[in-house]
Amino acid sequence: MKVVGQELPRVEIFEKVTGESVFGADVRLAGPALVGKILGSPHAHARIKNIDTTKAERLAGVKAVVTAQDLPPVKYGRFVRDEEYFARSKVRLAGDRIAAVAAVDEETAEEALRLIKVDYEVLPPVTDALEAMREGAPLLHEEYAQYEALPMVEGRKGNICYHKETVQGDIERGFREADRVFEHRFYAPMVHQTYIEPHAVLARVDASGKVTVWVPTQAQFFIRQSVAEIFQLPLIKVKVIPTEIGGGFGGKLLPTIEPAAVALARKSGMPVQIVMTRAEDFQVANPRHPFHMRYKTGVKLDGTIVAREVELVLGTGAYCGIGIVTSQRAEMLGAGPYRIPNVKIDVFCVYTNHANCGPYRAPAGPQIAFASESQIDLIARELKLDPLEMRLKNAIEDGDTTPACGGPLKAVHAKETLLRAAEAAGWKTTSREKNRGRGIALGYWLVGGYASSAGVKLNEDGTVTVITGVVDLSGTVTSLGQIAAEVLGVELDDVHVRTADSDFAPHSTISAGSQALRSMGTAVKLAAEEVKKQIMEVAADKLEAEPGDLVAEGKRVYVRGSIEKGLSLERVAQLSLTHRRGPIASIQSTSQFPNQPAFSAHVADVEVDPQTGGVKVLRYVAAQDVGIAINPLSVRGQIQGSVIQGLGQALSEANIFKNGKMLNPTFLDYKIFSSLDAPPVEVHLVEHAAQDGPFGAKGIGEPSIIPVTAAIANAVCDAVGARVFALPASAENVLTAIQEKNKERKLS
Amino acid sequence: MKVVGQELPRVEIFEKVTGESVFGADVRLAGPALVGKILGSPHAHARIKNIDTTKAERLAGVKAVVTAQDLPPVKYGRFVRDEEYFARSKVRLAGDRIAAVAAVDEETAEEALRLIKVDYEVLPPVTDALEAMREGAPLLHEEYAQYEALPMVEGRKGNICYHKETVQGDIERGFREADRVFEHRFYAPMVHQTYIEPHAVLARVDASGKVTVWVPTQAQFFIRQSVAEIFQLPLIKVKVIPTEIGGGFGGKLLPTIEPAAVALARKSGMPVQIVMTRAEDFQVANPRHPFHMRYKTGVKLDGTIVAREVELVLGTGAYCGIGIVTSQRAEMLGAGPYRIPNVKIDVFCVYTNHANCGPYRAPAGPQIAFASESQIDLIARELKLDPLEMRLKNAIEDGDTTPACGGPLKAVHAKETLLRAAEAAGWKTTSREKNRGRGIALGYWLVGGYASSAGVKLNEDGTVTVITGVVDLSGTVTSLGQIAAEVLGVELDDVHVRTADSDFAPHSTISAGSQALRSMGTAVKLAAEEVKKQIMEVAADKLEAEPGDLVAEGKRVYVRGSIEKGLSLERVAQLSLTHRRGPIASIQSTSQFPNQPAFSAHVADVEVDPQTGGVKVLRYVAAQDVGIAINPLSVRGQIQGSVIQGLGQALSEANIFKNGKMLNPTFLDYKIFSSLDAPPVEVHLVEHAAQDGPFGAKGIGEPSIIPVTAAIANAVCDAVGARVFALPASAENVLTAIQEKNKERKLS
Repeated sequence: MKVVGQELPRVEIFEKVTGESVFGADVRLAGPALVGKILGSPHAHARIKNIDTTKAERLAGVKAVVTAQDLPPVKYGRFVRDEEYFARSKVRLAGDRIAAVAAVDEETAEEALRLIKVDYEVLPPVTDALEAMREGAPLLHEEYAQYEALPMVEGRKGNICYHKETVQGDIERGFREADRVFEHRFYAPMVHQTYIEPHAVLARVDASGKVTVWVPTQAQFFIRQSVAEIFQLPLIKVKVIPTEIGGGFGGKLLPTIEPAAVALARKSGMPVQIVMTRAEDFQVANPRHPFHMRYKTGVKLDGTIVAREVELVLGTGAYCGIGIVTSQRAEMLGAGPYRIPNVKIDVFCVYTNHANCGPYRAPAGPQIAFASESQIDLIARELKLDPLEMRLKNAIEDGDTTPACGGPLKAVHAKETLLRAAEAAGWKTTSREKNRGRGIALGYWLVGGYASSAGVKLNEDGTVTVITGVVDLSGTVTSLGQIAAEVLGVELDDVHVRTADSDFAPHSTISAGSQALRSMGTAVKLAAEEVKKQIMEVAADKLEAEPGDLVAEGKRVYVRGSIEKGLSLERVAQLSLTHRRGPIASIQSTSQFPNQPAFSAHVADVEVDPQTGGVKVLRYVAAQDVGIAINPLSVRGQIQGSVIQGLGQALSEANIFKNGKMLNPTFLDYKIFSSLDAPPVEVHLVEHAAQDGPFGAKGIGEPSIIPVTAAIANAVCDAVGARVFALPASAENVLTAIQEKNKERKLS
Repeated sequence: MKVVGQELPRVEIFEKVTGESVFGADVRLAGPALVGKILGSPHAHARIKNIDTTKAERLAGVKAVVTAQDLPPVKYGRFVRDEEYFARSKVRLAGDRIAAVAAVDEETAEEALRLIKVDYEVLPPVTDALEAMREGAPLLHEEYAQYEALPMVEGRKGNICYHKETVQGDIERGFREADRVFEHRFYAPMVHQTYIEPHAVLARVDASGKVTVWVPTQAQFFIRQSVAEIFQLPLIKVKVIPTEIGGGFGGKLLPTIEPAAVALARKSGMPVQIVMTRAEDFQVANPRHPFHMRYKTGVKLDGTIVAREVELVLGTGAYCGIGIVTSQRAEMLGAGPYRIPNVKIDVFCVYTNHANCGPYRAPAGPQIAFASESQIDLIARELKLDPLEMRLKNAIEDGDTTPACGGPLKAVHAKETLLRAAEAAGWKTTSREKNRGRGIALGYWLVGGYASSAGVKLNEDGTVTVITGVVDLSGTVTSLGQIAAEVLGVELDDVHVRTADSDFAPHSTISAGSQALRSMGTAVKLAAEEVKKQIMEVAADKLEAEPGDLVAEGKRVYVRGSIEKGLSLERVAQLSLTHRRGPIASIQSTSQFPNQPAFSAHVADVEVDPQTGGVKVLRYVAAQDVGIAINPLSVRGQIQGSVIQGLGQALSEANIFKNGKMLNPTFLDYKIFSSLDAPPVEVHLVEHAAQDGPFGAKGIGEPSIIPVTAAIANAVCDAVGARVFALPASAENVLTAIQEKNKERKLS
């Protein structure tokens, strides 16, 4: 392969480094736009008795005030229709949308918000999922039983939005057969995606009623669908123009402020731009689901796992949102990437008076890996086994079946990935220094993929245009160009590939879930192959050869073995235009993709300050089962970024609340791991061509974040013997764990 | 048919009537743009000795000055590479481009133009094509023989850019066999397209060197090609965004100011907008070719035409441009739509010191019809034959062969169209009033068609998006939507159809030459049919039926005969996304189309004031062979507009020059026929399904303008017995003709 597998810089790099790229808040139209602001509830739980917008409407400079009255009475939600865009009778989180205003400037808009008078009857909030499950807890959705929901939404009761039990084998018999049974509880808090760019949108409504939305989104077709649904419009009346996007990590898949901007634009007759403040974004955007996790694991003395009972309780926030997706992921991943004959997994998805939690890079993944992989480590220590050996002994292999995702699994590279990480890190050879430790963790993700379609056209000069609607977050678009270039025998520089808007882009998958390249890459490959077929037909006719005897290489088509007997792609394009079949182009589609496992194994070296609990990451090794890397530069970059993001969740991040209001909604108080904090991250690619990815590529983005929390927790324990059961492993929490351990030691 | 054939308002009508549509000069970017201005030569013919831009560059507010030095030394031209974008050593027309400036405002830009010092050696100009052909005439292109040209460019000599002789039968024998031989000379002057919107462009060059051009053009892919060629860029580095367009009529096919804007944007690093003044547009844009025409026709006494010798000399202006296309059209149409056994046609395309003439609605058509159809009328009068009968006797029929366009011709509806016009006008029954007259004329056009491709996608809610790159001039885009709706069994309101830019549009034909609907309509129909096939497959599988037993109607698919056993298109789209083949979409292409005759017959009633020569059009009847009208409202509107435009050319329009400088470059001095001047135009459609148009549609726009000049000239002669041999039939020219006639009468 000539282009696929090359380390090529991203195609949009010039726009990025020169500041030309237009991100959400950068969008400007030629004429003036209004500033939109949203009034959120100050209470986490309250009944709305009255909303009076009269004064706000009268304020000079205010062009529109909207409330639930201005929208069709539509309840929406992908799994459960439990949400209205503006609250009508009740608020269920601090920040729940009450109203929005559009004004000539930000000051006026803020002033108008203050003039909106809302009478509330404050209700007691419930903000923890375990508490919300209890009998007598304040009920968020009194009429939950009446909500429309998909049949898959099982176990609805009280605040329990969804409950499912998954069983494999006989869990009781399993525990009976075990030599030892271990039970631990873990907790992973709510954390935020902390993309560098807060949510931003600009909306315009044309004379014909057509809505145009400029938005940095990972899923322009989701946003189109949501806006159409909320405003009861046909899809052809909504156009989403995805801007450049300053990070998403799953946080920019679902609508947040878009409908407010549309409602205001429609009412005011002017374009309206809304840009969230960082604090608003922290408070109301869709953070990672907090997980309470109970793991009970039965093992033989040699480390063989015979039974695992898992109870996962996740707080989904005030609305279901994608809580079902996260729950299903939790079911699939809950038992860990291990061959276990007897398994029982209970997942409870529970309403709480919080922001609606949403997708965040590998939903459920890092939470579960933290619990599962910490416990494996605990057990290995207890049994005096090498944590690596224990994992190798139990890791799933080809042909295994797992409880929620079935089997027999194919192309399982868990062990090879573990061994690659261990070898790279020098697992067996490391010398022991005081307060230093090493941790290992194995993660896996099941990469699916929605359906996609892509267009490829051959231009009159032999250059190639690739037309897709996937948004570029992590170099995907560059890789798509490499795929088309490879198929057509041209260079990446001969390919134009950028993201089209929802009107003109073929229907495209989301840029999330490690699936953009697998799904869209396949569609691009199919379309490029069809274009190549058309090229070959035209060339064969002209060269008086069989299409099968032709080679496409170096922007030419020639007869195999006689390189001089050929045509440039330019000539082929023009022949086709003037004499043959017309313009050479194709749209091709792929259907949904089955889940495919992808593994990552991480080894972390840390040093812990026993006085403060402070953890310093000294070295980090990540091995990953990536299929074939289309662009290794991009793959490595993505894995490094993912690890650094995971380190934040492992060591410092958590949304901290009081009565449902976030106490640390700034980057001064919410500490993410920056490049200054980050150790060098050594990336090792385990390459085996995946069965159905383009050129054997696999998803990259999610697997790489999953083991980080556990690798760090295990390394900390290795360093100072103290176990952290609740993330993050912040200095405070580690110090507490050290103190607990010291207490236990004294007691024993 | 449910949607095709309906009189539906244009899909973009809301944007148009509310002023939301963005035309060329309306384009605004968020940031500031510079104003560009072009320095044209004051001389029609001169050698450039020196260009000094120093002072202009130093003027405050000037951000860039460009000359030929700033562009690659590329000579371009579709048939002959005889043009450089900025003149380097010689100017050949008044207005030839010397330099361009970009400044912060228009005043500064104009001031800068005045500061550019150019030393010329003035040369004698030659502005008439007959004079330019003479031995010893000033030579425009001394090195013409060295220019690269396509092989088809025959007969190059001196100022003769192209000469071709076309012969059928034996012209000398033909004249010997004739009872009478008539010879006349006619002249049709240069006229301008007089679109309401002058040329305008905005260009931006990105950090990566990618050029974006917003331009009201009829041919975004031509503009892309030209800009790429002039700046030596690959096509993927040029994006053309077609704006709404305020008329084109062929005048907005070729690049005019676009390269200047690009050169200035590149040099200044800022976006640059250039909007032509009306005077500039009149002076340098691409007007209709002036024709000198000699017709020598031999007839039998019963009116049978036995021989016709035609000599056509057209001035192409300073550059060849599309002079070859106009010449070829003249070859094809020169002998008229008649069966003539012996024909000789000589076409000379000649350089003159004028603007480069270009395409204008039916290039060569109205000029030739004026000469040919005036002469038929003259002959009929001389032979005391009814002009209608003489035309019917000679008109071509199925199976006939014509000299330049071959045969045997199929689907020739000349006679039916003539008869329809005559019947509608009451040809035989009209009563005779003093100074009133009636004229008839027959026109035809050979409608070809470039290759096109179109995309159609089924959205998740069952609505349909049609993706093309053809620009909407005359309702084409609405008709394309009707075609897709018809195929897919939905309403026009369920279809989104607008023009995509050159990056994301499938390669598309031009909106010119009456071919947009034929070519793109066919591509849209093919793509919609492929989408329908995909829909049927998905539905058949779900309904457990054969695809062939299904009907698509009313936004549903159902089993023929059991309407209740069906699925909505929404359901089909979603099934396909989640369970089946992925998104439903297709791009399909058409190859070039062969020429196909289309006829128009016009009858004009006029009243002439014998004192002033003033002509008043009392009634106008137009019958046209339109194939099947996709949208009769749109078809009739286009024919009416075309007739009114033709009336201007017949009665009042001409570019008047002195030494190559236009004397009447304003709408005060250049009189177009307005709706206030226009009579009611009665349109009659002759509908026979055309062989290869979508749903049997044929091209509309060109045939309808062709007979106007002759119908008027013949009516004037009928009214007052005076013949106009040079257009326009202005009061002045008609009065002169009356005076000539009176002189002749006195002499005889």
